Amino acid sequence: LARALIKMEEIGRQTRKIAKDDPRRLIHSLKVGLALTLVSLFYYFQPLYNNFGVSAMWAVMTVVVVFEFSVGATLGKGLNRGLATFAAGALGLGAHHLASATGKTCEPILIGLFVFLQAVASTFIRFIPKVKARYDYGMLIFILTFSLVSISGLRTDEIVELAQKRLLTILIGASTCVVVSIFVCPVWAGEDLHKLVANNIEKLGNFMEGFGNECFKTFEDSENGRSSSLIGLSSVLDSKTSAETLANFARWEPGHGQFMYRHPWKQYLKIASLTRQCACRIEVLNGYLYSKTQAPQEIQGIISSMSSESGKALKELALAIATMTKPPSRNRHISNLKVASTNLNSLLKSDFWEKHANLLQVIPIATV
Amino acid sequence: LARALIKMEEIGRQTRKIAKDDPRRLIHSLKVGLALTLVSLFYYFQPLYNNFGVSAMWAVMTVVVVFEFSVGATLGKGLNRGLATFAAGALGLGAHHLASATGKTCEPILIGLFVFLQAVASTFIRFIPKVKARYDYGMLIFILTFSLVSISGLRTDEIVELAQKRLLTILIGASTCVVVSIFVCPVWAGEDLHKLVANNIEKLGNFMEGFGNECFKTFEDSENGRSSSLIGLSSVLDSKTSAETLANFARWEPGHGQFMYRHPWKQYLKIASLTRQCACRIEVLNGYLYSKTQAPQEIQGIISSMSSESGKALKELALAIATMTKPPSRNRHISNLKVASTNLNSLLKSDFWEKHANLLQVIPIATV
Repeated sequence: LARALIKMEEIGRQTRKIAKDDPRRLIHSLKVGLALTLVSLFYYFQPLYNNFGVSAMWAVMTVVVVFEFSVGATLGKGLNRGLATFAAGALGLGAHHLASATGKTCEPILIGLFVFLQAVASTFIRFIPKVKARYDYGMLIFILTFSLVSISGLRTDEIVELAQKRLLTILIGASTCVVVSIFVCPVWAGEDLHKLVANNIEKLGNFMEGFGNECFKTFEDSENGRSSSLIGLSSVLDSKTSAETLANFARWEPGHGQFMYRHPWKQYLKIASLTRQCACRIEVLNGYLYSKTQAPQEIQGIISSMSSESGKALKELALAIATMTKPPSRNRHISNLKVASTNLNSLLKSDFWEKHANLLQVIPIATV
Repeated sequence: LARALIKMEEIGRQTRKIAKDDPRRLIHSLKVGLALTLVSLFYYFQPLYNNFGVSAMWAVMTVVVVFEFSVGATLGKGLNRGLATFAAGALGLGAHHLASATGKTCEPILIGLFVFLQAVASTFIRFIPKVKARYDYGMLIFILTFSLVSISGLRTDEIVELAQKRLLTILIGASTCVVVSIFVCPVWAGEDLHKLVANNIEKLGNFMEGFGNECFKTFEDSENGRSSSLIGLSSVLDSKTSAETLANFARWEPGHGQFMYRHPWKQYLKIASLTRQCACRIEVLNGYLYSKTQAPQEIQGIISSMSSESGKALKELALAIATMTKPPSRNRHISNLKVASTNLNSLLKSDFWEKHANLLQVIPIATV
């Protein structure tokens, strides 16, 4: 029993942590509850229920499945679901008419064939990378609706009416989701992407500054202070998938705040990829700290000042991205950096130089 | 018109490429068609339809939604769906009884409250990382089923029968998927993970061998040959998410071939993470090629032989993992490598040494 209590406490603590880390999660949960309650009004009010009957079920299903964390994801899924239902419903009705024209014996065979062929083709199309990124859910709903509409046609004559009601309830469900997700504390995927990119650069900057200071302390001294920035570093390295997902969602979003519709989200991916490359180099530098080989005193000094300068430059860059201002094109830290790097080069043809080549590469693209 | 033709041709070529890259995709599409046709038999045969009626729809829906590319993913989704439907159905019935006991006026309010609270709580639980990784789909179905069952209770008295039929058809649909995906040309996520990890190490080995040979040719000479191995390198760096997804799926899979149930899939993730670290270091080496700084002749020779030796060692390691044999614990290439690295160290305290420290770190874990 005592162990169960401890476990409960542990779960409670974890839950509070999740809510604290990102309070929008709690708000999102409340929004889902709100949207679900709204569409379940179909069941509560007699006149609404008289119109739609059991089809009202589809509104509830749509809300549960379509409502996602960010506006972009919700919009994308809602549009996918609406369009796919419409297209597949129309095609399914067509298939039904075609099959029923051939007579009672042929009809089931022909329908079965249509369903089979359609499922094979659509499933295969889902493997095309571009389709997978943006229309995967739509293809799924296409298979589902086409199969349901054309097979149901075998058993009921009111199939047109059925399809109409279903489409209407799905549209109502999807638009409820979209409206709630846009107008109640919206979470914009584009904004998250923007912050992610700026934060990643800032993390690198923090790390480099820390590196500059702690570079030549002994192994045990600096271990504690650095472990947190190390986690930051590896989270930068692993951010590719989340950045790509956010960019995909962001493309569905209408203009908001500082971002227009068709904001150049792909540029963010380019910056993110350069940031990862840069993180890769810094990781190697970090490994250098753990090896116990020591550079001569003279070089140590230069490297230490170089890394803290580049840290400052990176942090300035992160700030410039976060506030969407143009960074001063030739800022102090970078020119300091260049001087130091030339000095170092004359001292040692080492591949430390690499890192800075890369750093300079990041700058022009970020200012675009 | 001509442009449309060209576009068609382009799409056709891309489609063939997708099928050729992985023929299992085509087979998967056929399997989905097969499973869908099997469950649609509910609609074709009168006795089956008499039993289930419109509930047969749920079998079709389940097949479309649950059938995934690998056995692990299908099993995971199927189990999630089945269990969540059962649990939510039971709770939904409970909520319905509780609410209807309070009388006609209170019932809708109480049901609405239950649905709202349940949606909020379940949506929030989905944010817990462990739940998100393995039971996300189950939570979604839980919300869906609970809402549908308890709300439907307001409108029909045959709710118990309805819930039973639905659960039964969903179980039939899910088991159809699982049976087809296991017994018709199965795609095992575990096997894919195994291959991915071995391939990644092999790619690094190939790159290092190539690096050893081409290290000191001029920039233009080697550009063409290297671009393909460079793509390999960046695919290794970005493989984190796919490895994690595969490992999650693999945990659902029963024993098959050389893999038992509860195969230590997490070890693969550790190896994959070390491989990525190694790739990171190699990327920096690669950057070194593009910089035009040249090391003195003496060092060049050592580095060149070192990298081709480490390439060979990595490839042997990859082979050992792929065939699941123990690599010779002290193989020739590694001892060559150690000798060369000591030589180099005495020549130059450079952070090239880093890479090999990492390499040696990979070995012990891989032999576990």
